[in-house]
Amino acid sequence: MESGTRQGALSPCAACKLIRRRCAQDCVFAPYFPADEPQKFASVHKVFGASNVNKMLQELQEHQRSEAVSSMVYEANARFHDPVRGCVGAISSLQQQVESLQAQLALAQAEVEQMRMRLISPSSSSSHN
Amino acid sequence: MESGTRQGALSPCAACKLIRRRCAQDCVFAPYFPADEPQKFASVHKVFGASNVNKMLQELQEHQRSEAVSSMVYEANARFHDPVRGCVGAISSLQQQVESLQAQLALAQAEVEQMRMRLISPSSSSSHN
Repeated sequence: MESGTRQGALSPCAACKLIRRRCAQDCVFAPYFPADEPQKFASVHKVFGASNVNKMLQELQEHQRSEAVSSMVYEANARFHDPVRGCVGAISSLQQQVESLQAQLALAQAEVEQMRMRLISPSSSSSHN
Repeated sequence: MESGTRQGALSPCAACKLIRRRCAQDCVFAPYFPADEPQKFASVHKVFGASNVNKMLQELQEHQRSEAVSSMVYEANARFHDPVRGCVGAISSLQQQVESLQAQLALAQAEVEQMRMRLISPSSSSSHN
């Protein structure tokens, strides 16, 4: 436990605590999974597995790891909320929103164009009405 | 191997082949990871781990599993292409696209409204110009 101490604390990080391993000074999990947020690691462990999370973090540079952990936590939580589609559900829903907005924008732009024509030549436009 | 045969084929499914286990008649992986698409399982195995994929599938009803596998393959591939953000990168980019489209739509709608006013009362509008 002596070498498992960190920043004066005696407790291991949330990851090492959950998987019951010694939390070393250079633990790859410790900076991102503090002991007071056990749910964060529990989520990514359940979806990706501690060993895969470890591997994925080791393959990244240190300055990239915090964002990688955030995205893994996000994906893991999305998988809990939607065990079938995970965060692909959010992607589909956003894609639908984009398509709907593009259609609405095209309509509004066509309307602007039509009105512009009527403002330029009111007589020719009114002859169509 | 006798009981590992499926649909007349002698080979185990792509999952059982990769993790070197016997492919049983009721293998949970076999319907979604055919032997001729080894990359599909390799991807989800690398990101989620075979054991987690197995657990996630077991927790779902059979009619939900195909879509769950598709979403896991999608997430795994996204993680290869963007090891830092995974498919959260796609979500952020779609969210930005939604915001940009909403802003463009609001502008176009304001323009429509402004032109409508000018068409209704051209004289009052022209007095501002």
